[in-house]
Amino acid sequence: MIGYAFMGAAHSQAWRSAGHFFDLPAQARMTAICGRDRTATEQAAAKLGWASVETDWRALLERDDIQIIDICSPGDTHAEIAIAALAAGKHVLCEKPLANTVAEAELMVAAAQQARAQGVRSMVGFNYRRVPAITLSRKLVAEGRLGEIRHVRAQYLQDWIIDPDFPLVWRLQAERAGSGALGDIGAHIVDATQFIVGDQLAGVSGLTETFVKERPLPTASSGLSAGADSDIKGAVTVDDAALFIGRFTGGALGSFEATRFAGGRKNAIRIEINGSLGSLAFDFEAMNELHLYDGTSSPETGGFTRILVTEPEHPYLKSWWPPGHLIGYEHSFTHEIADLLADLGNGVDPTPSFEDGLQVQQVLAAVAESAAGGSRWQALPLVAAASSAA
Amino acid sequence: MIGYAFMGAAHSQAWRSAGHFFDLPAQARMTAICGRDRTATEQAAAKLGWASVETDWRALLERDDIQIIDICSPGDTHAEIAIAALAAGKHVLCEKPLANTVAEAELMVAAAQQARAQGVRSMVGFNYRRVPAITLSRKLVAEGRLGEIRHVRAQYLQDWIIDPDFPLVWRLQAERAGSGALGDIGAHIVDATQFIVGDQLAGVSGLTETFVKERPLPTASSGLSAGADSDIKGAVTVDDAALFIGRFTGGALGSFEATRFAGGRKNAIRIEINGSLGSLAFDFEAMNELHLYDGTSSPETGGFTRILVTEPEHPYLKSWWPPGHLIGYEHSFTHEIADLLADLGNGVDPTPSFEDGLQVQQVLAAVAESAAGGSRWQALPLVAAASSAA
Amino acid sequence: MIGYAFMGAAHSQAWRSAGHFFDLPAQARMTAICGRDRTATEQAAAKLGWASVETDWRALLERDDIQIIDICSPGDTHAEIAIAALAAGKHVLCEKPLANTVAEAELMVAAAQQARAQGVRSMVGFNYRRVPAITLSRKLVAEGRLGEIRHVRAQYLQDWIIDPDFPLVWRLQAERAGSGALGDIGAHIVDATQFIVGDQLAGVSGLTETFVKERPLPTASSGLSAGADSDIKGAVTVDDAALFIGRFTGGALGSFEATRFAGGRKNAIRIEINGSLGSLAFDFEAMNELHLYDGTSSPETGGFTRILVTEPEHPYLKSWWPPGHLIGYEHSFTHEIADLLADLGNGVDPTPSFEDGLQVQQVLAAVAESAAGGSRWQALPLVAAASSAA
Amino acid sequence: MIGYAFMGAAHSQAWRSAGHFFDLPAQARMTAICGRDRTATEQAAAKLGWASVETDWRALLERDDIQIIDICSPGDTHAEIAIAALAAGKHVLCEKPLANTVAEAELMVAAAQQARAQGVRSMVGFNYRRVPAITLSRKLVAEGRLGEIRHVRAQYLQDWIIDPDFPLVWRLQAERAGSGALGDIGAHIVDATQFIVGDQLAGVSGLTETFVKERPLPTASSGLSAGADSDIKGAVTVDDAALFIGRFTGGALGSFEATRFAGGRKNAIRIEINGSLGSLAFDFEAMNELHLYDGTSSPETGGFTRILVTEPEHPYLKSWWPPGHLIGYEHSFTHEIADLLADLGNGVDPTPSFEDGLQVQQVLAAVAESAAGGSRWQALPLVAAASSAA
Repeated sequence: MIGYAFMGAAHSQAWRSAGHFFDLPAQARMTAICGRDRTATEQAAAKLGWASVETDWRALLERDDIQIIDICSPGDTHAEIAIAALAAGKHVLCEKPLANTVAEAELMVAAAQQARAQGVRSMVGFNYRRVPAITLSRKLVAEGRLGEIRHVRAQYLQDWIIDPDFPLVWRLQAERAGSGALGDIGAHIVDATQFIVGDQLAGVSGLTETFVKERPLPTASSGLSAGADSDIKGAVTVDDAALFIGRFTGGALGSFEATRFAGGRKNAIRIEINGSLGSLAFDFEAMNELHLYDGTSSPETGGFTRILVTEPEHPYLKSWWPPGHLIGYEHSFTHEIADLLADLGNGVDPTPSFEDGLQVQQVLAAVAESAAGGSRWQALPLVAAASSAA
Repeated sequence: MIGYAFMGAAHSQAWRSAGHFFDLPAQARMTAICGRDRTATEQAAAKLGWASVETDWRALLERDDIQIIDICSPGDTHAEIAIAALAAGKHVLCEKPLANTVAEAELMVAAAQQARAQGVRSMVGFNYRRVPAITLSRKLVAEGRLGEIRHVRAQYLQDWIIDPDFPLVWRLQAERAGSGALGDIGAHIVDATQFIVGDQLAGVSGLTETFVKERPLPTASSGLSAGADSDIKGAVTVDDAALFIGRFTGGALGSFEATRFAGGRKNAIRIEINGSLGSLAFDFEAMNELHLYDGTSSPETGGFTRILVTEPEHPYLKSWWPPGHLIGYEHSFTHEIADLLADLGNGVDPTPSFEDGLQVQQVLAAVAESAAGGSRWQALPLVAAASSAA
Repeated sequence: MIGYAFMGAAHSQAWRSAGHFFDLPAQARMTAICGRDRTATEQAAAKLGWASVETDWRALLERDDIQIIDICSPGDTHAEIAIAALAAGKHVLCEKPLANTVAEAELMVAAAQQARAQGVRSMVGFNYRRVPAITLSRKLVAEGRLGEIRHVRAQYLQDWIIDPDFPLVWRLQAERAGSGALGDIGAHIVDATQFIVGDQLAGVSGLTETFVKERPLPTASSGLSAGADSDIKGAVTVDDAALFIGRFTGGALGSFEATRFAGGRKNAIRIEINGSLGSLAFDFEAMNELHLYDGTSSPETGGFTRILVTEPEHPYLKSWWPPGHLIGYEHSFTHEIADLLADLGNGVDPTPSFEDGLQVQQVLAAVAESAAGGSRWQALPLVAAASSAA
Repeated sequence: MIGYAFMGAAHSQAWRSAGHFFDLPAQARMTAICGRDRTATEQAAAKLGWASVETDWRALLERDDIQIIDICSPGDTHAEIAIAALAAGKHVLCEKPLANTVAEAELMVAAAQQARAQGVRSMVGFNYRRVPAITLSRKLVAEGRLGEIRHVRAQYLQDWIIDPDFPLVWRLQAERAGSGALGDIGAHIVDATQFIVGDQLAGVSGLTETFVKERPLPTASSGLSAGADSDIKGAVTVDDAALFIGRFTGGALGSFEATRFAGGRKNAIRIEINGSLGSLAFDFEAMNELHLYDGTSSPETGGFTRILVTEPEHPYLKSWWPPGHLIGYEHSFTHEIADLLADLGNGVDPTPSFEDGLQVQQVLAAVAESAAGGSRWQALPLVAAASSAA
C-alpha cells in the first residue's frame, strides 16, 4: 500500500478485516507499506498492521511477495505508479479520482487494457458503491422497480473549510489535487448515481465558485487540522463548490452539487432517483437507511418506506450483525477489498474499472469546461465500459 | 373574487377566517364572486360564503360596494383584469404567476405604479412567504444569523401527472398556463428563496423537459382528476420539469428544480440556505418545522435544530393555538389576507408587489430562454423593488 | 356554546368552517355564546362569530332557536350543564374529560341514555379521533392489517409548566380540573388508543408525581401565560405526570405516559401499535404523517412507510386540499362538528358517546387509585359501549 | 475467549481492532479461544483470529500466556467460569447479564471484590455505554446540562420472534437464559439509563407476557435462524415482553419496555431523558445521532438539535474518521476493549463493575417479582457501586 493518511487508515482496516467476515477464495497478507519518510512510515506500519516498510514505491514493484498495489497517495501520483505497477504485473487498486486529468486517465486505461490481456487486473476505489444501501439501490433499479428513470438529484455537502482561516492544504491546490470539491467529492456522486442508474451522463452545464480566494499557508504539512498556520496567505486554486445540471443518455435529468461550504452538513451524500414507477432517497449521514417509494402501491398506504439496510437479505449484510445493528463508513472499504479479493481469486475483472474512472474524469472535465465558458452545454462521449455495471 | 377552483376555495377560507384570528384595522365583507357559468358560480357562492354572484368580471369593477378584486382565474386572464381593476380604483390581489409573459407583467407593473400614486394598491399572491417557517427564515437571514449567503438549494417536487394517461388539462397547455412546472411551481421557489435571502438572481442556466409528449384530451373540464378521458391525444405544450443553476447578485450560488414527476413527493418545497455562519432547511411536507444550524455553536453539541414553528414568538402564531398545535396549508392565505387588510387599513403598500411578480417572471423567462439555447448563461436585469422585502 | 377560551376558539372555527368544506344534511347557525362576564363574552361573540350572548347557561336551554349545546367550560361544570341540557331536549357536545369524577360521569351517561330514547343525542369531544392519521389508523387495525395487537405504546408529552414560577392556574387545582396531566392529556391517549385498537383496558398499574409542589398564585385569571404572578404560593393539588402500564381485554400490553414536564415536547402525542402482522407509529407534532410497517412485506424492501395523510383516499381529506398540502390542529374539530351535524341530520347517535367518556373516566380513576396504593393492579369493568367504534 | 457465536464474533473484531485505532499502554494478543466442539472451535479460531484452541475453559485458567478471560458463553455458565478465573488470577470481562440470578451475581461480586484486592480486575460487558452518543449523554447529564432529571423513558424493541414458528432456541428457555426480553435486552436499557442519569432505580412495578406459549423444538442447535424445525412443540419458559415503571432515587420517574414483538423495530434502543433544563433523545437505529434540547434557549430558535456524534470532540471519535463518516455497532466493543486494556495497563478498575452488573440483576429480579405479584411495588436496595460511574 502506498500512502498512510486518511485513505491509508481506511484501507488498512479493510485489508485486516475482510477475511474475518467474508469467505474469500484468497486471503491477503499485508506485506509492505510505502511512504517517503521512513520514521513516519514505520510508525504507520506498526499502527496499521503492515509487515514491512519501503520509502520508494518502485521497490514494491520489484518484490515477489507483493501481488497487489493499493494506491492511496494524492491524485497527481496515480498515473505514474499505476502504469508502472501494471507493467510490472501487479494488480492495482487505485483510489479515486483515477487521475487529475483526462489525459492521464486515458494513459491509465490503456495500461489497464494491456495488463488485462495478461490477467493483471485493476480497480478504481469508488468505495460508496459498496455502501449496502447504494448497492441495494443499484439492484432495485436494475430490476426495474423504479421504471424509467426521470430524475437524478445528487448532492455531496461538507463544511470543513468554511472558516476562512483554514490553511491552504494540498487539497486546495490545483497542482496537487486537480480540482476542489468537484473532483474530490463531486466524483463520488457522479460515479454513484451513474452506477445506480446504470447509465451515463450525456452532457452537462456547470458553475463553479471559490468563495475564499486566499488562505494562510500551512506552516508544516498540517493536514486537515484547522487554524491559521501562518500570516502569509496563498491563492486557493481550486473550486470550493461546483454545481451542474445534465442529461443522462437514457433521458433522465440530473442535478448535481458538490460543496465544502454547506454549514452543518458533514458528509451528506444525498441521492434521489425518481422513475416512472417509484423513487429512491439516500443520505450518507444515515447510511444504513434507504427510502423507497413504490408508485404502484395504494394511495391509502403509499409513501416512502424507510428500509433499515441491515437484513441478511441485503448486500454484504449476511457477513455482519443481526438486523438493526448498524455498520459504518469503513465497511464500504472492507466490502471493496472483499470483492477485489474474490474477483482476483476467481479470475474476474473487478469493478469499477479504470474505464469507469476515466468516464467520471471526463464528466468532471466537462463540468469544469462548461463553468469556464458561460455554463454552455458540454456533450460527453459515450464510453463503452470494459467491465462495469453489476 | 374571480375564480372558484382550488385557489378560489383557499382564498375564500382565508377571507372568512382572517378577521376571526387577527386584529385588523378593517374587516372584509365577502361581497361577490364571479365565474362564467351562473349556476356553477351560484353553487360556489353558497359553498364558499359569497353574498352575490357575477358572470362578467367587468361588472365587479362597476360596483361601489366592492373595493378589492381578488384574481384567482388562470394566468392568461390576469393582465386584462388587473389593469382594468386598478384603473377602476379597486385594490388588486392577483394570484401568481403575475402573468404568463414578461410583456404582460410589465404592463401590469406600469398599471400598478400609476394606481399606487392614487392610493390604489396591489399585491401578488406568493402565499408561501406567509408560511411561518419561511417568514421566520427571512427574519433570521435579515438579522445576519446565517452570515454571508453562499448556497441556495431549492426544489419543488410533485408527482400528480406521472401517469401518462392523466389528461391534458389546462395547466399542460402553454396558451393557458404559459409554462408548466417552471411557472406553476418553479415561480414559488424563485420567489421564496429570493425573499428569504433578500437578494435577486443575477443570471441562470437551465434545462427543461417534457417526459410525456402526448396525453388524452379531457372530455369535459375534468380538472385535476386522473384517468384517461378520451382516446384522442393532444400535444403537451409545457415543460414537465425545469432545472436551473444560477448566481445571486450577492454572490450565492443557486440550484433549483421544479418537477411534476418526482414520484412520492406530493408538495415538497424544499429549501436549504447555507451561509458563512449557519444554515437553514425547510420542507413544506413538514411545514411547521424549520431546521437551523448555528455554525458558531460548540462542535460537541452543534447540529441542525428542529424548530417547531408553533410558538407565540413565531410569525403569525400568537393568533393561533398553543405550542405544538400545528397549522396547515390554508393558513398561509389567511396570513396573506390579514396582512393585505392590515396594509390597506394602514395605508401601506402590501408585499409582494407587482414589481416582485415581474422580477420572478423575468427569471422564469430567462430559464426558458437558456433551456432553449443550449443552457447558455442568461444574465438578469436588477429590478428595483417598489416595496418588497420584509 | 358555553365557554370561549382555547376550546371555545377552536370549536368556533369548526362551527364556522364545517359547512364550507363538507356536504352536510343540515347547516349550523351560530346562535349564542355564553359566559359569565357580559363584556368579555360580547367581545368573544364578535371575535368568534356568534350572533348573541347569554351570561347564564340556563338561558340557552330555554331558547327555541337553539338545538345544540356545545360545552367548552371547565370539567367541574360539565355534569350539571349536560344533564340539564339533555333534559331540556337539546343535543349536547361536551368537551373531554366528560366529568371530573366517575360518579358525575355515570349520572351523565344515565341522562344521555334517557335522552337518547327521545332522539336527543350526545357526544363527548375527543377530537383526536378525527385527526385523519388516527382515523386511518383505526381503519387499518379494523381491517386486520396489523393482525393481533400485542403492544400499545402511548405518550402525551408537553412542557408548559416546567418553569417553577409558572402560576397556579385552574388546571393545576384539583377542585376545578379533577386531575392534572392524567385527566387533561392522559385522557386523550387512553381514548385514542382504545379507539384505534377497538378494545378496552382491562386493568392498570400506575404512578403519579407532582414535581413542583407549590406555585405562585395568579393575581388575576392569568390563563396560560407564564411568569410569577404573585409572591404568595399555593399548593399544586394535581399530578404533573402520570405513568401507567396495563392490559387490554384482547391481550395487548399497554404503556402510557402523560406529562407536562417533557422539555422540548410541545404537544407530542405519540402512539405506537405493534401487531402480529404489522405496526403503526404516529406523532402529533407531525400530525399529517402515519408510519406503517407491513410485516408481510419482503425483508429486502420492508420497513416503516411514511404515509403523508393528505390523499383524497384518506379520511376527511377529499374535502380539503390536493395531496401534500397539510392540514392543522383545528381541522380535527371541524371534522368533529361535520360528523356531529351529519349524524344529527341523519338521525344517528354520534361517537364517541357519553358511555365512551365514562369508560375513559374509569380508566383514569383506576390509575389514580393504583398510584395511591403502591401501584397495585386495578381491574377495570368492561363497559358495553352504546354506540362507539367506527 | 470463551464462546464464538454472535458475541464471540463481535468481541473478536474488537480485540483485533482496538490497538489499531487507540493508543494503549498494552497490546492484546489473541491467544486462545475455547468451545466444546473442537472442529467448530478450530474453524472459529481461524475465522476470528485466535492463535490456539481449547475445549475446556479450565485449561485456559492454567495457561501462563493468558491474562484476560473474556466470557461470551450463555448466562448460566458465567458464575462458575468467572469465579474460577478470578481465583486463578485472571482478569475477567464477562458479557451481560452478569448472571441468571441475583444469588449467582452476588457470589460473583464477592469473588470480584476478593480478586480486586490482589489487583485482579473485572468488568461486565454493557457495551452500549460505549456507543459515543450514550457516552456523550452521560457527560452532558453529569455536567448539569439537563438540570434535575424528571423523566427517563426507555424502550428496547426487537421483532425477531414474532413468527410463531420460530423455534424454541436457548434464549427462549428459562434454564439457559434466565429470562427472556427482560434479561436479554431489558438489562441493557436499565444499565444505560442508570449510567446516563448517574442514579439508580429505587423501586419498580412491572408486567411481563409470553405471547406465543409454545414453539417448535429446534431439530439441531439451529441458532437464530427462523423456520419450523420440528413438528414437536415445547413450552416457551421466558417472557416475550416486559414493561415496568419505576422511580429513581433522585426523584425521576422511569418508564421501561423490552420486547421481541415490536414488528419493524429491529434493534431500537430508544432513550429519552427530560430534565428541568433540557432533554435528550437517542435511538440506536440511528446510533450516530443524539438529539439534545436546551431548555434555556430562545423559544424562537429552540428545539431538539440533531447532533451527529462524529466530531473529534465527541467520545472515542478522534480515533476514527472525519466528521460525518459514521461508525457501527461493533465499535462499541472496540471502545470497551480499548478502555479495558487502558485500565489494566494503568492499574485501574474498569467499569461497569460486577457490582454494577449485580445491581442491574436486582432490578430485573424486582420486575419479575412485581409482575408475578399483581404489579405491586418492589423497593430496591441502594447498591454502593465499587467503581462505577464516569
